[in-house]
Amino acid sequence: MATEKSKILVIGGTGNIGKFMVEGSAKAGNPTFALVREASLSDTVKGKTVQGFKDLGVTIIHGDLEDHESLVKAIKQVDVVISTVGRIRLLDQTKIISAIKEAGNVKRFLPSEFGTDPDKTSVVEPANTLVFAAKREIRRAVEAEGIPYTYIVNNCFAGFYVSSLVQFEPRLTSPPRDKVTIFGDGNAKVVFNKEEDIAAYVIRAVDDPRTLNKTLYINPPKNTLSMNEMVTLWENKIGKSLDKTHISEEQVLENIKAYPDPVPANILLSINHSVFVKGDQTNFIIDPDFGVEATELYPDVKYTSVEDYLSQFA
Amino acid sequence: MATEKSKILVIGGTGNIGKFMVEGSAKAGNPTFALVREASLSDTVKGKTVQGFKDLGVTIIHGDLEDHESLVKAIKQVDVVISTVGRIRLLDQTKIISAIKEAGNVKRFLPSEFGTDPDKTSVVEPANTLVFAAKREIRRAVEAEGIPYTYIVNNCFAGFYVSSLVQFEPRLTSPPRDKVTIFGDGNAKVVFNKEEDIAAYVIRAVDDPRTLNKTLYINPPKNTLSMNEMVTLWENKIGKSLDKTHISEEQVLENIKAYPDPVPANILLSINHSVFVKGDQTNFIIDPDFGVEATELYPDVKYTSVEDYLSQFA
Repeated sequence: MATEKSKILVIGGTGNIGKFMVEGSAKAGNPTFALVREASLSDTVKGKTVQGFKDLGVTIIHGDLEDHESLVKAIKQVDVVISTVGRIRLLDQTKIISAIKEAGNVKRFLPSEFGTDPDKTSVVEPANTLVFAAKREIRRAVEAEGIPYTYIVNNCFAGFYVSSLVQFEPRLTSPPRDKVTIFGDGNAKVVFNKEEDIAAYVIRAVDDPRTLNKTLYINPPKNTLSMNEMVTLWENKIGKSLDKTHISEEQVLENIKAYPDPVPANILLSINHSVFVKGDQTNFIIDPDFGVEATELYPDVKYTSVEDYLSQFA
Repeated sequence: MATEKSKILVIGGTGNIGKFMVEGSAKAGNPTFALVREASLSDTVKGKTVQGFKDLGVTIIHGDLEDHESLVKAIKQVDVVISTVGRIRLLDQTKIISAIKEAGNVKRFLPSEFGTDPDKTSVVEPANTLVFAAKREIRRAVEAEGIPYTYIVNNCFAGFYVSSLVQFEPRLTSPPRDKVTIFGDGNAKVVFNKEEDIAAYVIRAVDDPRTLNKTLYINPPKNTLSMNEMVTLWENKIGKSLDKTHISEEQVLENIKAYPDPVPANILLSINHSVFVKGDQTNFIIDPDFGVEATELYPDVKYTSVEDYLSQFA
């Protein structure tokens, strides 16, 4: 292990997970840097978080994933980069990867993971496509670029899963005292970790040669429990038995499919930006190595022109 | 080209895009098969679609991506597999890939694409993570398995983009007659295709050696238009000029970020299924080749047990 404390940059530090990493790093005595967007400073909640960081001696760097130069400059100041960007920004981490390559000094990169292992999960849709595919793509990009990494698999956050006793409809903020709904038979073993503990392990791992190019699983034996076991722990604490309803796997799968899934407005708008602002459909040459054009191949197909299509409405 | 018409299986045939493929295939005289889930048959709209397929002579096969054997059996009957599964099932196509490998007879696979080229797009989040990453992952899986493929890049659907003249808030079903909002300067060139035309090109391409292991771009010259040009076509048709408001790229990007993005209930529930029913956090061995466990590496860290964590609520 390094005798001097590694300098750590957290990207996404004002988010739910990032906050714990910044605080954990600063409290462990590591010189700590947080990349913060201008927009976050004008946000009341995030502004308060940033003030808390400053009180802990954290260096705030104003920057953005979109601003390559500021990113490279921030990265050049540190040894370790921890990304905690949110779900819908996962693939923007390719910009961090590019900046790390250019900076050339980073000894360890921790991409944003902080859940179940994306290479080991059997998760069904929609989460496989909407969450885990991006995490896998970033893992493969990190490996392809030869960037030294550690993947953090902390499994379930206690603040989300233990506080609620896994009751989400509606989501409880403290465990129920009368009844509880249990997924399946409730015997699958699950891992729960308190947010501050996760940060403590992460900060230990960032300059540990034993975690280089490895996945760090945070699986404390005492916290590897089935849902049934967790419910029993709670029942013992309150000295009362809860009414239990089991929801079968078949029913869980049906419920997932029953949720409506319209294209969210923000997805549609980002596609429109790509198409109507950037011109992504037409701004490249169709090289015969990879592509062919349909109207050239099949000139006899009579297609409907936009002009004719519009006629039906005129 | 084949002298006998290729036999075509459409997976996802009751969906928005799939319907056109099934109908296009049947109308072109190809022996056509549609894999339909039991659940689709009890759905009124989809039930009607399936009846329409039968009227066209389409063979309905009852099956499901989850049922590997039925999938292999269906695939063994055909030469070509066209997948039109929806956005949130994109990665489930790995099950189609496995079945195609096992069946061993498929001459061409068309994974579900039907939009902008995912390898060429500069799309910003959230659509990059939530749509295009999955399409890229499936492309790479198809290539890694050596399955003969054609990727279909049809760019914009006319029924969605031309009918609305790209007005989505609220979404119009016919072009506006008074005012129109234009993305950016409105000069980026975009490609629009009518759904039936797309199907016609696709059915031509499925057994064409010129499209083997290539991307088929459907870019008709007459339909490669900027938004400004499309608006002008419409103005000429109705003999009236529209009031135009341009929305700057900066504003588009700000609007994308301004949309709320809570974790949708169906994503959360599919994660819960993986964790609490399948036990994905604990059902594999942490092999030292890829992983290490935190409490073993750092036994001095005093972590909070679930039991202690629950005490705060008791």
